[in-house]
Amino acid sequence: MNEVLRRDAEAVVRSAIDAVRPDAAVRRALTRISLTEDLYLAAVGKAGWQMASAAVRYLDRPLRRGIVLTKYGHVMGEIPGVICREAGHPVPDEGSFRGTREILEMTRGLKAEDMVLFLLSGGGSALFEEPLIPPEELQDVTNQLLACGADIVEMNTIRKRLSAVKGGRFARWCAPARVEAVILSDIVGDPLDMIASGPAAADPSTCAQAREIVRKYRLRLSPAALECLDRETPKTVENVHTQVIGSVRELCRAAAAKCEALGYRPQILTDRLDGEAREAGTMLARKAKEVPPGTGRTALIAGGETVVHLTGSGLGGRNQEIALAAAEELRGVRNAALISVGSDGTDGPTDAAGGYADGGTFDALLRRGIRIADVLRNNDAYHALNAVDCLIRTGPTGTNVNDVTVALIDRG
Amino acid sequence: MNEVLRRDAEAVVRSAIDAVRPDAAVRRALTRISLTEDLYLAAVGKAGWQMASAAVRYLDRPLRRGIVLTKYGHVMGEIPGVICREAGHPVPDEGSFRGTREILEMTRGLKAEDMVLFLLSGGGSALFEEPLIPPEELQDVTNQLLACGADIVEMNTIRKRLSAVKGGRFARWCAPARVEAVILSDIVGDPLDMIASGPAAADPSTCAQAREIVRKYRLRLSPAALECLDRETPKTVENVHTQVIGSVRELCRAAAAKCEALGYRPQILTDRLDGEAREAGTMLARKAKEVPPGTGRTALIAGGETVVHLTGSGLGGRNQEIALAAAEELRGVRNAALISVGSDGTDGPTDAAGGYADGGTFDALLRRGIRIADVLRNNDAYHALNAVDCLIRTGPTGTNVNDVTVALIDRG
Repeated sequence: MNEVLRRDAEAVVRSAIDAVRPDAAVRRALTRISLTEDLYLAAVGKAGWQMASAAVRYLDRPLRRGIVLTKYGHVMGEIPGVICREAGHPVPDEGSFRGTREILEMTRGLKAEDMVLFLLSGGGSALFEEPLIPPEELQDVTNQLLACGADIVEMNTIRKRLSAVKGGRFARWCAPARVEAVILSDIVGDPLDMIASGPAAADPSTCAQAREIVRKYRLRLSPAALECLDRETPKTVENVHTQVIGSVRELCRAAAAKCEALGYRPQILTDRLDGEAREAGTMLARKAKEVPPGTGRTALIAGGETVVHLTGSGLGGRNQEIALAAAEELRGVRNAALISVGSDGTDGPTDAAGGYADGGTFDALLRRGIRIADVLRNNDAYHALNAVDCLIRTGPTGTNVNDVTVALIDRG
Repeated sequence: MNEVLRRDAEAVVRSAIDAVRPDAAVRRALTRISLTEDLYLAAVGKAGWQMASAAVRYLDRPLRRGIVLTKYGHVMGEIPGVICREAGHPVPDEGSFRGTREILEMTRGLKAEDMVLFLLSGGGSALFEEPLIPPEELQDVTNQLLACGADIVEMNTIRKRLSAVKGGRFARWCAPARVEAVILSDIVGDPLDMIASGPAAADPSTCAQAREIVRKYRLRLSPAALECLDRETPKTVENVHTQVIGSVRELCRAAAAKCEALGYRPQILTDRLDGEAREAGTMLARKAKEVPPGTGRTALIAGGETVVHLTGSGLGGRNQEIALAAAEELRGVRNAALISVGSDGTDGPTDAAGGYADGGTFDALLRRGIRIADVLRNNDAYHALNAVDCLIRTGPTGTNVNDVTVALIDRG
């Protein structure tokens, strides 16, 4: 095994995972905000409790008030100075409406010197909702939109107008207070106005578009709902500053930063790696081999999530199969290695986060009578990598923003 | 077991899965197109081969010419009259550029009476690309955009302008010929201009926005690339007609249609079901119980993809856990049932597609000494459901657009 590459590779993935833990990501986001004295906290979404507890731990001043609104079963304990509420997801329920009203009450009549720390994560669309029409009609409209095949932009154009908080309206409600939005994104590259239907994001859609959608799909709406469609959503939200944290892209960027610190020239190839794990491993190892001689140290980085099609009854995971497939491709290649891990620290039903391979892995396996083709056929990457000390273990990390694969190459 | 509900439930999920098989979905899309004599086929994406072979099988006339451009390893055989090419994904390579040029050659100089059948599926963004700048610079720009944290809208605004085919430019190239776009969407609710960066979709972004993104992230671009950013993309593509097929939403809609045919009033609750499988099962069963008496037959439908956190070493899958959790909630409830299946026909590492439960399932399990709490703790839903004949088996279906769960309730 190439000890230098192994050490560097582990350092890179550990540093990348550390950067996307909700806790660390919230902390970093807070350091970029100049807080005011009159600080209110609203944490909405499935990671609301984690984000709020991290924020409270790192804030250097007390909150005026704070509310967490998260999914049932997601409150893990008390947070000093913060009320924790649970509600329905993905179908909103009375708990969603009640919790949202509490947040609206808390932020009623704020002044320019006040600040709302708005921590948003996945699931916010169902959890954070104050419908402008009866909830039953809202569900019926959602049902109609789903049944007629409206696309997500069309659905949001309608639903934002039927809500008191979506489509930038929560930000408008908080004005003139400043809103510091910190968004933990679990969707690759999701635009801001899509995440939770953008309570603090300007809405690009128009009333004319909303009316056209009603016509196109012949939606059945009450007169009250039709009137809502004619009320325009905010086109600018100047009191808002937004930071997006914790996406697979941030995982890649953190890996790139650590590679750079270790003297590698980083290249993020993609943040949408998908397809069969072993094919991705082969492809990335090939790209590593193609790095021209004399170009020094290069790091190729890919984020995403591959799949494994089970054909055998062995033990393993997609990152372990990526590493094992790379081991075959990298056989005998000097100064090249590949590491692949799941950011949640759990790859498949195993205690490993992923695997590592370099130019010596193939022969190390062979010396133990292990052939990679057989191992892959039986989906047994875990035992093979374990035999040559190539499993990567991080323990559960408390975050899940897909996987990251890093190939390190030193071409001298 | 309630034999009527069981029969209806199976019929609903089978009909839903049938509707989203690429083959059936392409066939249905074709019936809605009035074809011309001069017909060209371009099938781009990971499902390109499947879509093209289905189209050729169902077309009632020969193609003038046809090209498939798909990922390496995805061509499964010859298609009469169609050239099949493979290329790199998710990182485009020379094969992508060469295949794209072939498609552009085929569609050069078309006339108004010509028609291009454009079959697009996931992966098209990397596979279908003719860069207006050298490929190395394109990769470098992509790398810069990923590394600086630009969001997906910003990335597309730049990349569309550096491409001869993205952002509606392929449709413009084909004009005055008509383009019939059939899009197999594997991303929940993805907007048209996002799928493969929208070769046949109008581009809402502007040159001014592109320049602003360059400023904001201090992108390093060659003079040639900067010039590209100032060339506007099509804001309308009037020669294009688009059909989106095969999404999880279509899975839900097909389930709803079958429910209606069987006399149930269908309600699509969500197409974004997520979270822990057993919690989703409990939630949906509760919603079923809440349907008021005297409202006749109702069907509650949810699409999406849940997760299972393994705590035991049993056998099962997320749909089987959904059904088992529902069995507990539905205990003793008359005329209520729930079925949950994966559209690929494979739930977890098992030969079942999912599971079924109704008001009698809990006690049927108990009579065999099986307690649901124990089974869930050991993640062993497969053996429990098998013992009471509640596994649903479809065999592999050749499609994967997430899962669908249907609760059937007859309230008289």
